[in-house]
Amino acid sequence: VSRERLVVIGADAGGMTSASQARKRRGAESLEIVALDRGRYASYSACGIPYWIGGLVGSVDALLARTVDEFRKQDIEVRLRQEAVGLDLDAGVVTVHDHETGGDYALGFDQLVLGTGAVPVRPDIAGFDAPGVYGVQTLDDGEAVRAAVAADGASRAVVVGGGYIGLEMAEAFVERGLEVTVVEAAPQPMSTLDPDVGALVAEAVRDLGITLHSDEQVTEIRTGAGGEAIGVVTAEREIPADVVVLGLGVRPNTALARDAGVKIGVTGGIVTDKRMRTASHRNVWAAGDCVQTVNRVSSVPVHVPLGTHANKQGRVVGINIGGGYATFPGVVGTAVTRVCSLEVARTGLREAEAEQAGLRFVSTLTESTTRAGYFPGARPITIKMIAEKRSGRLLGAQIVGEEGAAKRIDVLATAIWNEMTVEEVSGLDLSYAPPFAPVWDPVLIAARRSWDAVELDVRADYTPQP
Amino acid sequence: VSRERLVVIGADAGGMTSASQARKRRGAESLEIVALDRGRYASYSACGIPYWIGGLVGSVDALLARTVDEFRKQDIEVRLRQEAVGLDLDAGVVTVHDHETGGDYALGFDQLVLGTGAVPVRPDIAGFDAPGVYGVQTLDDGEAVRAAVAADGASRAVVVGGGYIGLEMAEAFVERGLEVTVVEAAPQPMSTLDPDVGALVAEAVRDLGITLHSDEQVTEIRTGAGGEAIGVVTAEREIPADVVVLGLGVRPNTALARDAGVKIGVTGGIVTDKRMRTASHRNVWAAGDCVQTVNRVSSVPVHVPLGTHANKQGRVVGINIGGGYATFPGVVGTAVTRVCSLEVARTGLREAEAEQAGLRFVSTLTESTTRAGYFPGARPITIKMIAEKRSGRLLGAQIVGEEGAAKRIDVLATAIWNEMTVEEVSGLDLSYAPPFAPVWDPVLIAARRSWDAVELDVRADYTPQP
Repeated sequence: VSRERLVVIGADAGGMTSASQARKRRGAESLEIVALDRGRYASYSACGIPYWIGGLVGSVDALLARTVDEFRKQDIEVRLRQEAVGLDLDAGVVTVHDHETGGDYALGFDQLVLGTGAVPVRPDIAGFDAPGVYGVQTLDDGEAVRAAVAADGASRAVVVGGGYIGLEMAEAFVERGLEVTVVEAAPQPMSTLDPDVGALVAEAVRDLGITLHSDEQVTEIRTGAGGEAIGVVTAEREIPADVVVLGLGVRPNTALARDAGVKIGVTGGIVTDKRMRTASHRNVWAAGDCVQTVNRVSSVPVHVPLGTHANKQGRVVGINIGGGYATFPGVVGTAVTRVCSLEVARTGLREAEAEQAGLRFVSTLTESTTRAGYFPGARPITIKMIAEKRSGRLLGAQIVGEEGAAKRIDVLATAIWNEMTVEEVSGLDLSYAPPFAPVWDPVLIAARRSWDAVELDVRADYTPQP
Repeated sequence: VSRERLVVIGADAGGMTSASQARKRRGAESLEIVALDRGRYASYSACGIPYWIGGLVGSVDALLARTVDEFRKQDIEVRLRQEAVGLDLDAGVVTVHDHETGGDYALGFDQLVLGTGAVPVRPDIAGFDAPGVYGVQTLDDGEAVRAAVAADGASRAVVVGGGYIGLEMAEAFVERGLEVTVVEAAPQPMSTLDPDVGALVAEAVRDLGITLHSDEQVTEIRTGAGGEAIGVVTAEREIPADVVVLGLGVRPNTALARDAGVKIGVTGGIVTDKRMRTASHRNVWAAGDCVQTVNRVSSVPVHVPLGTHANKQGRVVGINIGGGYATFPGVVGTAVTRVCSLEVARTGLREAEAEQAGLRFVSTLTESTTRAGYFPGARPITIKMIAEKRSGRLLGAQIVGEEGAAKRIDVLATAIWNEMTVEEVSGLDLSYAPPFAPVWDPVLIAARRSWDAVELDVRADYTPQP
């Protein structure tokens, strides 16, 4: 067999996991691996950036999963500050711009992995590209925010957007002792939750001392004499700011792939088959925040930029390039976050998603505690459950609580994965001891309530109307 | 309809949940409810007793789920210190001994719930019934141990048996500042775990400053001049003790039921159908630590005395007596415990149980951390997985670790419940954020390793032998 070359575009979770897995199955004599990245770092935990900014993680080194040297020992060549700017899939050639020398060069490939990740959403409003307005997607972003926070007199931070990243950044600024304001356009923060659960989050966030303006659109970033951001303007008010962070979410970074003729889906992400192969070319693969996947509950295409999916997809790509067989099974939409002592998690479909999928459902909200009520450290937990009408199939769940609450979402993600009914969930053999749960775990109580609601709903359907 | 009388024998989790659920569906005009208990308390958390003794739970009141007065408000009459000493199922009459007056009386019933619980295993060895040797099944036991610990000069506690209760009592005595020795007859503590996982527990328990003598049979309880326990004798040594606690486990308390002709199973527990009805009489039900259930993985009858099962079974009984329909689905053998900072959990089958069920399997041990490695509070976690040969079906899992480790067993219990393969488990959409998990949750890493082992095993089967 002749030696092939694998080129990986984007040296982060999706791309580098692909590279490592391919290497495990094919030695350097069979496969040369070159990974390109436009940034200064390879393979880091982007999810850890807010904690680095907040100071919970002391050093940037902690976020680096593997260094370029470590990859070299695996016979994987990582070229940093080398940006793929052109792609000819039929010819099998990437055009690379070298940010160090300023020159371009061509790099041929036999196999290609697109791991181009995501880019922050930047709305088209005056001042959004001003100095002093930061994203938090890359370590370079993180360094810039750290410097801004450390600057003389920095005391007021404004976070635009109250989703996962926005709230994590709010925590980071609280940790740093800044006065923090979050501005969210929707009526509640965390638009991936139902509004009633979002309202619980809003209340808890405000109790933490964070100012939250929801239902308020940012109309402008006010800039100072030097063109730098000095405040955030909404229809209601102007909020002075020493640091402005964008927490508006991200979109798949697919310009390069799209221009090269790779099929892009309705979510803006790259379309692949189950083995993570693109539709257009059998030797072109994709993984991570740039791809589109499917929600197993609704069967709807979704874009879910999360490190854990990027790793799983990269592994699938690498095994397949390595000559093995692996598939990515899709997602059920599980996510978790923490804001100081507050824990928030979700899985499956929220109400709006269930409606879009044409499903009818019954919702319940259940309060309990994370440990036996009498046990030290018992904390509040609220579980929302969404069960399909009639069948009682669990469609979605959301959790808001304190320490020990959020990780319980995994049980519900597993239940949804297996298409369990809430009645079945209420019978699950979950672990019990006073330091870990009440004698009825909150998950079991919530499932019981949900099943009761499903039964009441059935009864209502069969009760003759006057 | 004429009014029926429900008599409940044993006013704890199984019995009183039955009573409450029956009451929800049938008012006092339809159903009179009388619950009998030989003890001084109704409906308490026996699982909380070690924490009460240890001082983590300050007051006995915290352990009382509901008082006799609260039950009275539900029109449920609880008669304490009234012991059922005879049972005529055909006539529908219980003979009750009143420990207050010393007299006996007859009580007729239309429906009967047996909730007689379990009694501690007391080996037939000299001194085991001496004063100063305590069980920890009842609040009366707990009060006695608290008094013994508080007595002048009490400084040395010996726990006979290193299972769940034994280790929880060891923690309690550590909390109380006593010098603690645990004696276990088996080679490792926690015989519900595989020996290799038990060895990890043994090491961690010793690191906590607890003296653990395993593979050592207790031959005698040494008694003093007044007949009171003063030490524990084994083949190897004599251990002086101010307090001796029995942690040898419990057996179903079924003498009364057996004498009345109720069918008892191979485990010593009462046999019921799925609705928790006894085989002999359609109006006689059973719930809680006195019943036998089935392990869903092995299909083998088991006796699992746990408050969470007692509650679920009691609920099933009450719904059925109330005219509804409910079944108890069996268990997968989930259990969890904590010894100071150590967390231990299990679910499904351990190796010996899988062998007994005629299953062949592949075992793996995986180490990880409870949070992202760089995140403050990341703690070690070790997961053992037992997967069926060829199919890769998850048969069992065991976890040893520190804070945040043990409750992950619930995901695996849910996976086993749904007969997932370890490959499927490795694809689960579990929640990820640095404060909650590494980017690959330990459960996913363990499942991946387990699947790799299953594949290697298949390959070995197909590799021609020389």
